[in-house]
Order: sequence, then C-alpha cells, then structure tokens
Amino acid sequence: MAKQLPRQIEGLKQKILFVGTLVEEAIAKAISALINRDRNLANTVIEEDAEIDRMEVDVEEEVLKILALYQPVAADLRFVVAVLKINNDLERMGDLAKNIAKRVMFLSNCERFDLPVDFRGMATRAQSMVKESLDALVNSDPVLARKVRDSDDEVDALRRIIEKQIEEQIAAHPDRTECMMRLGSVSRHLERLADMATNIAEDVIYMVEGEIVRHHRTTEPM
Amino acid sequence: MAKQLPRQIEGLKQKILFVGTLVEEAIAKAISALINRDRNLANTVIEEDAEIDRMEVDVEEEVLKILALYQPVAADLRFVVAVLKINNDLERMGDLAKNIAKRVMFLSNCERFDLPVDFRGMATRAQSMVKESLDALVNSDPVLARKVRDSDDEVDALRRIIEKQIEEQIAAHPDRTECMMRLGSVSRHLERLADMATNIAEDVIYMVEGEIVRHHRTTEPM
Repeated sequence: MAKQLPRQIEGLKQKILFVGTLVEEAIAKAISALINRDRNLANTVIEEDAEIDRMEVDVEEEVLKILALYQPVAADLRFVVAVLKINNDLERMGDLAKNIAKRVMFLSNCERFDLPVDFRGMATRAQSMVKESLDALVNSDPVLARKVRDSDDEVDALRRIIEKQIEEQIAAHPDRTECMMRLGSVSRHLERLADMATNIAEDVIYMVEGEIVRHHRTTEPM
Repeated sequence: MAKQLPRQIEGLKQKILFVGTLVEEAIAKAISALINRDRNLANTVIEEDAEIDRMEVDVEEEVLKILALYQPVAADLRFVVAVLKINNDLERMGDLAKNIAKRVMFLSNCERFDLPVDFRGMATRAQSMVKESLDALVNSDPVLARKVRDSDDEVDALRRIIEKQIEEQIAAHPDRTECMMRLGSVSRHLERLADMATNIAEDVIYMVEGEIVRHHRTTEPM
C-alpha cells in the first residue's frame, strides 16, 4: 500500500490542478463577458459551473480515500489536507465567477457607461493571483505564494478606488443607481476572488514551511 | 492508540464548539453594536477576533495530529474532515463579524436614519442559522441541518428587499449615498454569514449521511 501513495498523491495533484484550470477559465470568461457585454459568453460561464461542482465532489472523495487507505503522514498528510481546503475554495471561486456572469446579464441592459478607470486592472490582477496561487501549489513554491499574498493589498486598494468612483457616479446620476450598484457588486466579487487566492497561497506556505502565516494579513479598513 | 481515538474525537468536538460559541457571540455583539450605535462594543468585537484566529490554528493542529497519530477511518474520518472544513469557515465568519463591527464605526458618524424594515429580522435569522448549524454538528442532527439549509433562501430574499430599500433611499437622498452603501455592505455580510452556516449544515448532512447535498442549493438570482 505505502508504495502506491506517491502515485495517489500525483493523481490528486493533477485533479486539483484541473479544477484550478476550470476556475481560471471561468474567471477569464466572466471578465471578458463583462467588458464586451457578451451575454452568450456569460451564459457559458453559468452553465459550465456544474462541471466545477462535480469536480469538487470528486476531489473530496479522492482525499477521503487516500486518508482512509494510505494513511499519509508528515509532508504527504499536509499536502492532502491543503488540497481539501483549496478544493473547497476553488468551488466557491467558481460560484463567484458565475455570480459575475449573472451580473453581466443585468449590466448588459444598462445604458452604456464607461467602466471605472481601474476596473480592467483589478480584474487582471485578481485573475493572475488565482493563476499564481495554483502554480505555487503545484510547484510547492513559497516565494510565489508570498508574492500572491502581497498582491492582495493592491486589489483591496483598487476596490476602494472603484467604490469611491461608483459613489460619485451615483451622486451625480441617481438614475444610474441600480446599474452602478451591480457594478460595485462585481468589484466586490473580484476582491473576494483575490482573497481566496490569498487563502490558497497561505495554505501553500503552511504546507511547505509548516508556518502559520494566516491572520497576519491586512483586514478591511474601518 | 486506537482506544484513545474516541477521547481525541470528543476533545476535538469540544474545541470546535468553543470556536463556534466565540463566533456566535461575535455576531451577536456586532449586530447589537450596529442597532445601538455602540462603538465600544464594536471595538470589543474587533479586538476579540484574535482569539478566534488563535483557536482556528489550534483546531487545525489538533486535526493534523489526530490524522497522523490515530489514523481514523469511516465515520470518525468523516467527522475529522468535516471539522477541518467547518473550522475554516468559522474563522471567516469571525472576520465577517469583525467587518460588520468596522462598518458600525463608520455608520455611527452618519446622521440618524431608520434602518430598513427587515434589517433586524435578517440579522436575527442569520444569527440563529449559525447557532443551529453548530447544534446540528455537535448532535449529528441532519434534520436540524436541513432546516438551516432551508432558511438560507429566506435570508437571501431579505437581503434583496433591503438592497431595494437602500437603492430607493439613495435615489431619494443622494447625500446619504456613502452611509447607505455601508449599510448595504452590512446586509451582504449577514447574507454571507447565512451562506457559511449553510455550508456547515451541508457538511453535517454529508458527515452523517454520506450524501452530497452541496450544489443543490439556490444560487444568486440574475
């Protein structure tokens, strides 16, 4: 049995990476749908979330199987436990991408308005954080994981700028209130995606170094 | 070793319940601080979050120890894995309570306005869901867990009503935009607390019945 463990671990790594790729694609498509007001693409994101949900269940079953049959210890155990937590986060990130896609459906009915200045920048940043956190996982790379964690403050700052711009737009054009509030909701979804990439990065650091890095991150300002 | 497992499991149950109690208290205090504009109480919530963070680390270490030393299988393994995931969620629920408390700091500077009609109702509902999901965990009670899951739609509906009221307030009084948007943020935090209680409830159902109930829940409307 013990000899088979490395193969099981490798299989699990491939599976979680596959879920990660699905989530990355969902985010990229949702953002592209938002920028291009592309309802068809938004609809694809909504439909494809079911596959991410199925994969989450599949990965969790795999983790339970490995724990029960192969009883990993030390670094292997830490990897398996990290995958369990990251899997959970990836499924929720898929939900966030789906929710952005749903906002696109609503926003495409709004009169055309310029997106706030830093919107694309925030989306791109959040998307790379997700990609990098998964690269850090698969390569057990704590340096890259720390880079992801540091980017989180940047995304939070962008979200606050966008929120300010949205408040100004609402004050100047009260008739745009509903559309602007939905746009604000997209920026918060992006912020939460970045937060979850940060969670993944911290799980990776803990997995590699056994160091508890959580709870040192900056929390929301007053 | 095997004989000690039940005692380890019991100890873990007590610990996760303790974290749950801290989180419940944090939510109750944050909501009370909001309703009574009590900055001191809000500050207490912000300070006390550090204890929840410490307990999360403690519980996770305990889970790793049990997995490595006692190699639980079947129902015990499912319980330990459920605790790992629930622990993660509880820590984030503590963060949400802290974020509500931070909003109280801002909102206490706003001119006095009536809270939207269903605000207290939503807060009370979200708070009971958290309590009930933890009761379901400790009593392995899937009936109660299903009740929690069913309440989630109710909280979502309340959040949508509140959002509508906030939009109307902003349209009627553009000078209140910033205060109203912070209030909207509190209602979204409450909705996320209810979502996380639902996650816990679904983990409990899965733990007891081995049934995958996730991904059947209603997602956000368009």
